[in-house]
Amino acid sequence: MKAVILAAGEGRRIKPHIGNAPKPLTKLLGLTLIERAILSAREAGVTEFLVVVGYKKKIMTSYLRKLERRYRLTIRVVENNDWTLGNGSSALAVSPYLKEDEPFLLLMSDHIVAPGILKKLIARGKRLRNGCLLAVDLNWDKEKDTEEATKVRIEGERLVAIGKELSSFDGLDTGAFFCFPTLFPALRASAKEGDYTLTGGIRKLVERGNMFFIPTEGLFWQDVDTKEDLKKAKRILLSHISSKDEDGFVSQYLNRRLSRFLSSYLADWGILPNLITVTSFLLCIIGGFLFTRSSYSYILLAGILIQFASVLDGCDGEVARLTFKCSPFGGWFDTVTDRYADIVIALGITYSAWQAASGSVPWILGTIAGIGFIMPSYAKKEFALRYHKPQPNRGLIAKLIKRDLRLFVLFVGSVLNRQFEALLFAGALSHIGVMGLFISARKD
Amino acid sequence: MKAVILAAGEGRRIKPHIGNAPKPLTKLLGLTLIERAILSAREAGVTEFLVVVGYKKKIMTSYLRKLERRYRLTIRVVENNDWTLGNGSSALAVSPYLKEDEPFLLLMSDHIVAPGILKKLIARGKRLRNGCLLAVDLNWDKEKDTEEATKVRIEGERLVAIGKELSSFDGLDTGAFFCFPTLFPALRASAKEGDYTLTGGIRKLVERGNMFFIPTEGLFWQDVDTKEDLKKAKRILLSHISSKDEDGFVSQYLNRRLSRFLSSYLADWGILPNLITVTSFLLCIIGGFLFTRSSYSYILLAGILIQFASVLDGCDGEVARLTFKCSPFGGWFDTVTDRYADIVIALGITYSAWQAASGSVPWILGTIAGIGFIMPSYAKKEFALRYHKPQPNRGLIAKLIKRDLRLFVLFVGSVLNRQFEALLFAGALSHIGVMGLFISARKD
Repeated sequence: MKAVILAAGEGRRIKPHIGNAPKPLTKLLGLTLIERAILSAREAGVTEFLVVVGYKKKIMTSYLRKLERRYRLTIRVVENNDWTLGNGSSALAVSPYLKEDEPFLLLMSDHIVAPGILKKLIARGKRLRNGCLLAVDLNWDKEKDTEEATKVRIEGERLVAIGKELSSFDGLDTGAFFCFPTLFPALRASAKEGDYTLTGGIRKLVERGNMFFIPTEGLFWQDVDTKEDLKKAKRILLSHISSKDEDGFVSQYLNRRLSRFLSSYLADWGILPNLITVTSFLLCIIGGFLFTRSSYSYILLAGILIQFASVLDGCDGEVARLTFKCSPFGGWFDTVTDRYADIVIALGITYSAWQAASGSVPWILGTIAGIGFIMPSYAKKEFALRYHKPQPNRGLIAKLIKRDLRLFVLFVGSVLNRQFEALLFAGALSHIGVMGLFISARKD
Repeated sequence: MKAVILAAGEGRRIKPHIGNAPKPLTKLLGLTLIERAILSAREAGVTEFLVVVGYKKKIMTSYLRKLERRYRLTIRVVENNDWTLGNGSSALAVSPYLKEDEPFLLLMSDHIVAPGILKKLIARGKRLRNGCLLAVDLNWDKEKDTEEATKVRIEGERLVAIGKELSSFDGLDTGAFFCFPTLFPALRASAKEGDYTLTGGIRKLVERGNMFFIPTEGLFWQDVDTKEDLKKAKRILLSHISSKDEDGFVSQYLNRRLSRFLSSYLADWGILPNLITVTSFLLCIIGGFLFTRSSYSYILLAGILIQFASVLDGCDGEVARLTFKCSPFGGWFDTVTDRYADIVIALGITYSAWQAASGSVPWILGTIAGIGFIMPSYAKKEFALRYHKPQPNRGLIAKLIKRDLRLFVLFVGSVLNRQFEALLFAGALSHIGVMGLFISARKD
């Protein structure tokens, strides 16, 4: 599957705010707009890119060569010297590079679009014989200023009108298309009448009943035309990087707020997710050692460190998702180091309890509690592998055996200088959780 | 998918050895022959059974009613009063109960056949329009006495001859068929000529070029006609219940030999696999407590108990596979209790080392070693979930992190009264194993 990306325009409205570089090179959470468009399409299964450049084409071309090497992609740069006429002329410029019947994705370099929308376009497009398909937002934010947006009217599965000027409309054009080369004659017909915009060409397809749509169904997209749009895009991306259902209580109400804030900077700075994982792990190790000291200030510091590590533990995944750096290894590494980190913390706290009380009891209790930091996760993984589905995330039990809660309990414990009691409490919660998993596995 | 099972015969040759009950009710590793035939077909996806009875039909019918309730199956009992004429008459007896075009499996109640063979029959049969399909063993044991076996000659994908009397032949009839109702006119044609055997009917199909085959390709089957056959069947079933590739060194060379021997009795006695899991778990718990005693005899006993528990840990899965009692819960329960059992053992050994040396060092080392009993398995599960494939089982590392080896090291340690050193050694092996998994995950 190929994707055509239009990146020839000047971006006049955002220009005063972004300095000298062309608009597609504007950075947003660690990636340029065009980089994000390319990676989003790659995630949807696209392997080859045709990027149309015009304005500042030399800078664009050399940047695209860099992306090609960095991500090991195939990017063909297509120059459109008539780019000032309109974006339809840029779309037309790729026609010599596509086979007669070859479908392709058509994307705008200045729109951020969830990979899920592109996947849906491709899936629906495969059942299309001809014509084109547009992703349409039917549930747009009614508060939003839609003056500058391209609007559409629909009937059944077809578009019946498109344009910025529509006063009554059913949805917004997201700028993400699945096209057959039928697009090109339509663009030429529109150009003959003096309209060189993409919308002009699409209007021709609409007139022929050849223009279909899919709804975005809550998946995100954002047209980036102004400085405000850029901020909005950032907010949208940050709010879509984690799902509430997967999170424990502490994540949901505390950690995620902090980690999203941190992640936006970490992504901007280009910090690699695995480095965040390592940092979070090291903070826990330091915390574990600090717990062995008897002075309250060290204990408190240890508590703060592990709570901070717990927040950072969310950032690695968030930054990976924000910057398309998710990998099975990253996930594996994060999960396995978490378990080792927890054990070091439990050992540190147990050691300090033993110093205070001596005897074997602190060790036995502390070890059993520490094992509780591994077993719920272990039992859930075993369930997923045996039953070929994740263990149902239902009820309180699932929330009680999450790491965010355990580390928060230890944090509160260290604030109260009762970290050993907190360890035992967190361990007990976890073992009760495994019993809950046992009952739920028995039922399934 | 329906299966027709022929269970009308008298079984004259085995009769003197099995007492009064009809032959299909002969017990073999905890299941009767007919029970095994039914469960094997169920595992291949069959949901409805037609069982033809004749000899001692009352006993057979009431037994089949029992099986129907026990396994919640649909079993239609078909009486064939002409069973003494030959097994072809029994196959003919089901024809009123099948739709005109309905394919079915045709099985003998006195043949044990691997579910894999039945799955292959169904898969190949789905591409068949008409005619019948026989599973043929092309690599039979040439030492074996084949005088009583039904032999076949093949050409391409068809059978060209069938019969006990063939002097030159390519393979053996396993008694497992996939049939279309074309079988019935063939049986009638054979009966008209006075041959009421199933082989007679099949011969008619062979003559019409309507008889196809699939090879068994190493999957097991056994025709049970004599007391010796019954012993052979037992040996075959026991040798197919575990795969060498999955096993560690100690399992392969020691535990499996013992566990298979035990499993054959446990299956005979009808012991439930989960009960074996619980017993193995309790033995480990007792072992863990015995390790806390200082006298050598207790330590030795503890070592023997956990090595025995390690052998039993193989039996639950073996008995489950032998008696068609595998379940996701059983697997989950076995795996999770193993981890808890290991921790109790590690705690017991560590406690005893602390009694001898005091201080925190035994506890810290013992706990770290004990964690090593969980983490390799944890890391492998996480790999399987992240990469959607099992972590490659290659090389020494995979063998070094298996439970059979850890428990054997502890057993040897306790024989030498050096159980704490053994614990640390086994723990070190395991953590090195996790490092190996890290490297292998990094590469993938």
